[in-house]
Amino acid sequence: MRVSELVDRTGVPLATVKYYLREGLLMPGQATSATRSVYDESHVRRLGLIKALSGIGLPINRIKVIVEVIEDPGPSLFAALAEAVSALPPYSEPSTTDSVGYPRAEAALRQLGQTCDPENPAVAQLDRALAAAEAAGVPMTDERLAAYAPHIMGLATVDIDSMPRESAAAAIEYAVVGTVVYEPVIAALRRIAHSELAAEVEVDATDAGR
Amino acid sequence: MRVSELVDRTGVPLATVKYYLREGLLMPGQATSATRSVYDESHVRRLGLIKALSGIGLPINRIKVIVEVIEDPGPSLFAALAEAVSALPPYSEPSTTDSVGYPRAEAALRQLGQTCDPENPAVAQLDRALAAAEAAGVPMTDERLAAYAPHIMGLATVDIDSMPRESAAAAIEYAVVGTVVYEPVIAALRRIAHSELAAEVEVDATDAGR
Repeated sequence: MRVSELVDRTGVPLATVKYYLREGLLMPGQATSATRSVYDESHVRRLGLIKALSGIGLPINRIKVIVEVIEDPGPSLFAALAEAVSALPPYSEPSTTDSVGYPRAEAALRQLGQTCDPENPAVAQLDRALAAAEAAGVPMTDERLAAYAPHIMGLATVDIDSMPRESAAAAIEYAVVGTVVYEPVIAALRRIAHSELAAEVEVDATDAGR
Repeated sequence: MRVSELVDRTGVPLATVKYYLREGLLMPGQATSATRSVYDESHVRRLGLIKALSGIGLPINRIKVIVEVIEDPGPSLFAALAEAVSALPPYSEPSTTDSVGYPRAEAALRQLGQTCDPENPAVAQLDRALAAAEAAGVPMTDERLAAYAPHIMGLATVDIDSMPRESAAAAIEYAVVGTVVYEPVIAALRRIAHSELAAEVEVDATDAGR
């Protein structure tokens, strides 16, 4: 297809398509003359991914990391997934406490019998989240962690079971988009479930008071 | 205790304590002279709450909403919890689409057999999250929703089972702090669980390829 059709199909303006081409986010089309190129479904798909990631606030340099991993995932899908997901928010400034490891995350993951890979940015993210809980006066207890664990593993199992296996690129796209897109859905559903359950608490309390 | 001890106990600087007093976030102490007041454990606790909420980025006017609900929860704990939690991020600009309801959230909650209360800000939050998933090309399917649901209800049950019942104020404090503090913990643990499970996928694939 011509670039005009690519614009129509994706809704991405021409100037933006050109910008993505210049920045290397979108692979070049096949040149048919000195000034013309044709594009295919892979370009439609890539623009969809870029649009999705920029729509949720990812800066161009982070999207580029993800695109590069998709184009060259290397021999380990596991490592490629980790690298792509590490380009997602939340972002943290490297801090001096990072150099002493992630004691809270390590303790939590040891309790759960899970691997603590300090190279995984989610471990640093967990350590910061646990530190924030402590600072807020509601530290994560072993009991709460143990009670949460099977449900979190259950959510993650749903995600991984649905991961496409036909190519590394498809798996990586699914992982990055699914991670950022479903996190807010889960957060909102948890809050609604709180309301649902709190309404029952109130009814119980009223009954008990009669 | 004197205000100096309150500062020592909480680590909140004197100027900030005075600011919270002026803004009505911290209740006045008991005056012992024209220029002196004494404070008690309720002030330590309130400063801990304000510190926790401002530490996670809540602006003063939102903290004030929560404090006002804690001070005057009204007859319905359920309504008070909803009002306090509604002061938490994510914040959204009112949009014209809000006026036509929350079709995606309504459909999702109907499928789950849960109440859809359009007054609950988490319903608008869910609708936006589902719209973002659609825009990113990975709309929430009925299958994924059904697969997620028991695990999300499981997490929420852990939270509500641990909710203090001794006073409305304690329940509201727990709800607001727990909502914002444990969301990032859950998100990080889900990402780590993804890595854990993806590592197994890779091993399986290698075995299958032999």
